[in-house]
Amino acid sequence: MKLVLVRHGESEWNKKNLFTGWTDVDLSERGVEESRNAGELLKAENYDFDIAYTSYLKRAIHTLNNALDVLDRAWLPVIKSWKLNERHYGALQGLDKAKTAEKYGDEQVLIWRRSFDVLPPALDPDDEQAPRNMAAYREVENKDELPLNESLKETIERAVPYFEETIKPQMLDGKRVLISAHGNSIRALVKYFDELSDDEIMGVNIPTGIPLVYEFDDDFNVTDSYYLGDQEAVKEKMEAVAKQGKAENKEEEK
Amino acid sequence: MKLVLVRHGESEWNKKNLFTGWTDVDLSERGVEESRNAGELLKAENYDFDIAYTSYLKRAIHTLNNALDVLDRAWLPVIKSWKLNERHYGALQGLDKAKTAEKYGDEQVLIWRRSFDVLPPALDPDDEQAPRNMAAYREVENKDELPLNESLKETIERAVPYFEETIKPQMLDGKRVLISAHGNSIRALVKYFDELSDDEIMGVNIPTGIPLVYEFDDDFNVTDSYYLGDQEAVKEKMEAVAKQGKAENKEEEK
Repeated sequence: MKLVLVRHGESEWNKKNLFTGWTDVDLSERGVEESRNAGELLKAENYDFDIAYTSYLKRAIHTLNNALDVLDRAWLPVIKSWKLNERHYGALQGLDKAKTAEKYGDEQVLIWRRSFDVLPPALDPDDEQAPRNMAAYREVENKDELPLNESLKETIERAVPYFEETIKPQMLDGKRVLISAHGNSIRALVKYFDELSDDEIMGVNIPTGIPLVYEFDDDFNVTDSYYLGDQEAVKEKMEAVAKQGKAENKEEEK
Repeated sequence: MKLVLVRHGESEWNKKNLFTGWTDVDLSERGVEESRNAGELLKAENYDFDIAYTSYLKRAIHTLNNALDVLDRAWLPVIKSWKLNERHYGALQGLDKAKTAEKYGDEQVLIWRRSFDVLPPALDPDDEQAPRNMAAYREVENKDELPLNESLKETIERAVPYFEETIKPQMLDGKRVLISAHGNSIRALVKYFDELSDDEIMGVNIPTGIPLVYEFDDDFNVTDSYYLGDQEAVKEKMEAVAKQGKAENKEEEK
């Protein structure tokens, strides 16, 4: 059994270095290119799929659609779920790094960045940006399920059960699954598959637009996992993601 | 209850005047524009939806995706079914009007164009272009369900039951439905809703990229139907479709 995960390409807000979370910003031009490249990498290795999953956020949906177009698989069934959304950054969403430090102090920002389970400040339940007040989540019956803020821990607590209850049965049924999602919802799955500790997962950087393949035996134990394509390019992209985090932290420490 | 139908924008093969049918050609640049315009017309009138349906063909899927993007509804559930595909033109697919006349004779071509239930020549079941041999239809268990050729009659016989069994229950459940489909699968639904005769439906021309709204009472009787936007533009587009048909026929009659 194989599963392929793809993190969406660069978004308009990644470019501007803002906390994005559940804010529904689109791919940048470079992000569109990355999503097509993900399709090309899968095509080059003759990957095919029976069903695809993605989040409610257009940067992941468009990444999936663009990759499926390259694969000539626009007709595949696509299931969208908010359980695969990015981590919800609460009241930090829309702030850039400088504004965040100004508002909450450098030390607090460092704690949020480096901790597995410390929640960022919550949105007010009446805030129009709170998911319970947004059109996209109007079908969710129990509005209390929808977060006002999340640490990686809360992201895992919704993404992993969704995988177990909805996606895994499809795989056990023989379906080849492609998931287009986000840095932290993919981290959630990686932690679960690789049985990583809370500390270990904080050190994992998922590169954008590069298909990550997991292979499982019949008992759903991971037998192998790898990124597709030029491994040097993968490494560079992972280091760039890690370095970006460090540079930000350094700046904040000033 | 309201239902909105959209015929996909111009495709690469419409431009070349080839029989397309189930051949999976993409939208032309103009077709992309038409699909965005469909979204704009819906947005201007504050239309919103709970679920969308489309065919297995990328010109309808992309029309839907583009319109949903304009509406900021990329997260809506989208169900794809081959039952909403264009009429299957059998062995005529890929031929232009001149080649068709050369191969089958002018008189025969006229019969195919004007008749409700005369089948075009069938594809060979072993032809790689036969749907039963195509990747997109590999999930269809009974391959005999998949056509090798269709008249409008056969198109109706699969599109209308799909509507009745799958889409209508959603509408009765209060869901606002958008369908992105094709000239003949939309004709099938129009014939069913408006209870048109076989002759009457042959005179109906569906303009591309213009939302067609049907309103129903609680017993699912049509109470009103209309195209959105500038009615003069709608009329011109319908006449252009009708005229195109006539010009072709005239040429074939020479």
